[in-house]
Amino acid sequence: MKQKILKHIRKANAYISGEDLSSVCDISRAAIWKHIQELRHDGYDIEAVPNLGYRLVSSPDKLLPEEIKFGLDTKIVGKNIYHYDVVSSSMDTAFKLALESSDEGTVVCAESQHAGRGRLGRSWVSPKSKGIYLSVILRPHFSPNEAPRLTLLTALAVCEAIKKITGIDCQIKWPNDILVNEKKVGGILTELNAEMDRTKFVILGIGINVNTKKNFLPARATSLKEEKSEAISRIELVREILRQIDHLYLVFQKEGFAAILEKIKHLSSTLNKRVKAISQGKEIEGQATDIDKDGALLIRKDSGFLEKIYTGDIIRLR
Amino acid sequence: MKQKILKHIRKANAYISGEDLSSVCDISRAAIWKHIQELRHDGYDIEAVPNLGYRLVSSPDKLLPEEIKFGLDTKIVGKNIYHYDVVSSSMDTAFKLALESSDEGTVVCAESQHAGRGRLGRSWVSPKSKGIYLSVILRPHFSPNEAPRLTLLTALAVCEAIKKITGIDCQIKWPNDILVNEKKVGGILTELNAEMDRTKFVILGIGINVNTKKNFLPARATSLKEEKSEAISRIELVREILRQIDHLYLVFQKEGFAAILEKIKHLSSTLNKRVKAISQGKEIEGQATDIDKDGALLIRKDSGFLEKIYTGDIIRLR
Repeated sequence: MKQKILKHIRKANAYISGEDLSSVCDISRAAIWKHIQELRHDGYDIEAVPNLGYRLVSSPDKLLPEEIKFGLDTKIVGKNIYHYDVVSSSMDTAFKLALESSDEGTVVCAESQHAGRGRLGRSWVSPKSKGIYLSVILRPHFSPNEAPRLTLLTALAVCEAIKKITGIDCQIKWPNDILVNEKKVGGILTELNAEMDRTKFVILGIGINVNTKKNFLPARATSLKEEKSEAISRIELVREILRQIDHLYLVFQKEGFAAILEKIKHLSSTLNKRVKAISQGKEIEGQATDIDKDGALLIRKDSGFLEKIYTGDIIRLR
Repeated sequence: MKQKILKHIRKANAYISGEDLSSVCDISRAAIWKHIQELRHDGYDIEAVPNLGYRLVSSPDKLLPEEIKFGLDTKIVGKNIYHYDVVSSSMDTAFKLALESSDEGTVVCAESQHAGRGRLGRSWVSPKSKGIYLSVILRPHFSPNEAPRLTLLTALAVCEAIKKITGIDCQIKWPNDILVNEKKVGGILTELNAEMDRTKFVILGIGINVNTKKNFLPARATSLKEEKSEAISRIELVREILRQIDHLYLVFQKEGFAAILEKIKHLSSTLNKRVKAISQGKEIEGQATDIDKDGALLIRKDSGFLEKIYTGDIIRLR
């Protein structure tokens, strides 16, 4: 009922009388008032003016499911959204939900993480309500060695969403970083639970520095706010990210990875650069020439030999 | 203390007096008697003869940790062994233990499974105390796409152990079946929990029809007892399997997969045969020419094109 009332206040886009609300929601005016109080408690600023009625002044700066779902026209992603004020990591929470057989497309959003992490267990700074820390559960019908492609798919989804909401051009630093002006603004983490030829589930993790101030960020990192010099709506961005993942995931399933690979290459900050890759304890230096249909990076060594690496740290040389 | 008493009775290999037991274990003769009663309750047949003492007549036909550990000289595998009368699947139990950060090498043994499974969720018949249903937790430092090699490693370990304990020659039907005389006697299941470039843990599952009678087995399956026409000690076989896994895993880690690949190829029932492979919904027909360093099967199609498949169902043609 709370959500229904909110929907109508929002839809009114101006004042809506208690009487109208009462009639459209089919509950008493006293009950309406009770729910309004609850919404205010949740952080909604709702003005109540005698003879005019109620008006939504502002929504809380929280990634609340009802806010994200408003106008979300996805097929799979975001049908279920869980929101937490604080978690150890949205990955852990999503993992537990997936083990309890949560549906494909289930999303976990957190305002903050006390053990946010990146690749190889590195930490991810997650200040409260400044960034986006979310995880998506997928249950793709593919073998586990296809999972790395989902990392790139998600990176592409994040770049497209950021461009659409903020106008900022991002790049994908293979295999899983999102850059703005060569500084890190986000990262993707993919976790996998699988048998040999059956993926049980994949968790896509997304961390983005949205409104984080520079002094809270690690060196060589940035936030969208720092780049744009204005605050960004986290809700709009999350909604667009879920839309993009939903869209690209459907394309990927129907037409294959090749259908989105060109876009990924186009946004790559790694291709056609001289790089040093540190992968599985091995160092490989050469020219990054291609990302192939497995999502792997091809590096042409000075010997002419082409190395294919599935993951690793990339350092740009020169 | 129970285990200590058992160890001494076993070591005596004949009668050991209550007095000697009491002195070597440093507890009263009455306490010794109490523990003997408990051991009998566990299924140990212990004879007690006045003036002679105690003698072990037989051990229970159960895969008890203390039985398996007796003489087990492994470095990693089997340091912790959990035993259950019945589980849904030893895979599920091991998975939960691994999530609770059980050590590498932890083993789960079950007398029976009510939801034993094979590849792609197919069921695995698990009659009580007739077969071996066990899972091993490993925490290898490799990327998830190396996991298929562990399936073959485990298959090799099982073949070597069966040969050593029963003298029966087994073959490996790529990717995960164990055959005797072209009939299925066992299977391997590998489950994986990983991030992109970090394997958190792998569960190796082993199912073997040991003393199962023909009428309890699916068509085209057999048991070691059926093949050998005599009952096999499950405990000795489990102990040898753990030894073999321990040994091959250490070789694999030190010297790489190549160091064990020749043996796997040698035992392969698939190589140099004309086959139809059904992999990821695709059918590939041709000559199975090689198993490569990734553990993948190479099939030479009639067109001359070489297909590499990572997993699938193989049907032998002609």
